[in-house]
Amino acid sequence: MNILLFDNSELNDGLLTLADRRAKHIIKVLHCDCGDHIRIGEINGKVGTGTVVLIKKKFPFRVDLFVDLSDQPVPSPPVDLVLAMPRPIMLKRILSQVTALGIGTIYLINAERVEKSFWNAGILTEEEYVPHLIQGLEQAVDTRLPQIRIFRYFTFFVEEVLPGIAAHYSSLVIAHPSSEKSLLECLSGKRGRILYAVGPEGGWLEPELEKFLAAGMNSFSMGARILKVDTAVVTIHGRISQILDDTS
Amino acid sequence: MNILLFDNSELNDGLLTLADRRAKHIIKVLHCDCGDHIRIGEINGKVGTGTVVLIKKKFPFRVDLFVDLSDQPVPSPPVDLVLAMPRPIMLKRILSQVTALGIGTIYLINAERVEKSFWNAGILTEEEYVPHLIQGLEQAVDTRLPQIRIFRYFTFFVEEVLPGIAAHYSSLVIAHPSSEKSLLECLSGKRGRILYAVGPEGGWLEPELEKFLAAGMNSFSMGARILKVDTAVVTIHGRISQILDDTS
Repeated sequence: MNILLFDNSELNDGLLTLADRRAKHIIKVLHCDCGDHIRIGEINGKVGTGTVVLIKKKFPFRVDLFVDLSDQPVPSPPVDLVLAMPRPIMLKRILSQVTALGIGTIYLINAERVEKSFWNAGILTEEEYVPHLIQGLEQAVDTRLPQIRIFRYFTFFVEEVLPGIAAHYSSLVIAHPSSEKSLLECLSGKRGRILYAVGPEGGWLEPELEKFLAAGMNSFSMGARILKVDTAVVTIHGRISQILDDTS
Repeated sequence: MNILLFDNSELNDGLLTLADRRAKHIIKVLHCDCGDHIRIGEINGKVGTGTVVLIKKKFPFRVDLFVDLSDQPVPSPPVDLVLAMPRPIMLKRILSQVTALGIGTIYLINAERVEKSFWNAGILTEEEYVPHLIQGLEQAVDTRLPQIRIFRYFTFFVEEVLPGIAAHYSSLVIAHPSSEKSLLECLSGKRGRILYAVGPEGGWLEPELEKFLAAGMNSFSMGARILKVDTAVVTIHGRISQILDDTS
């Protein structure tokens, strides 16, 4: 935890009272005392300093912080993700990893090769997935909570939703080993948000890929190596960020 | 498993006899019969086709394959990694992920912020870590087994080993948030192998960083976001690969 996050609704006249894992973290990991300062941020808001004004180090833990927010959070790359629903245990890791790297919206969608059982996992409720997003923000010292949008019908997403949101993006890209374009060619000369799509283990079916292309996606190749979904999500994010850094 | 790998010592006059998890995979996942072909590769050798010539589908499993190797494996980026010893469970995942992405040598080294208990983990024996490398190769359809070199003394590595191997690299890079150089500036105009270093959770100490710089490493910044070690390893690999693709 590199920053302690709170929701605006928890704040009372500039005072934040904690009695959960965050209080425990301040006491057991940071070993704070009254008067100490910690890095703090409001979810979807600014970052600043929390000053410990009351601390109860024995269970039940309690920490009161006086909150002073002054700065914008770290920059986040203008990147969104379309992800075929992965195995829930992998999804948790992907959510915190891409949140740490910086992401705006994650569209979780169905595909032919997505195992049906994945859709019955508890991870798809807000209560379950938000903690993994928070974990990513706490890691990266960010406050911007990514949006999660879930689409259980591939065709509905690609035919009804994607064409509508495509206009918000300067580039929409999808990895495909047999594409002749490079990622740089797909992104070059454009400025604005980027949407990238990562398929299920085993890949998109050819008709699925064709529907993406018809909806405005551009395919690119990054070589013949086959990657697991979590590796692909992070490495493509790195590649996009590198191109954005080099052209900004 | 996108390719089935074997060691040269297992081969008998072009015939490979399997009775382990690979035989089980051929029977239970690939549902092969006699005469079927599967993608096969010799560790550190070529890839080709295995033809099933005998199959026993009931336990104890057995599959005999006639092996025909003809092609070189997929290209691998000319990249090596210096990694401060991470938590063993994370190391396993990192090993298979960077092997899938393509890596030559991984130097596992000590650092001040590495927990001492990590060095007592079973993962540091060849018997324990090779399966994670094989998993990465099986994923990416590669055959080149990465080299693992382990250095329990930071100072010995950075003062005695690193200056000796530095000449093999066209660039040696280390991420540091306050560096003013970009990764592209560190790599641009150079062709050859690249060595990148990723520190422990919490980062390198300032004196450690100075020793790396004295040994020929160049620091680069990729922004203020703090990443976990596994995320950093994969995203920097992606960034380097992107620059290499764009300048090749």
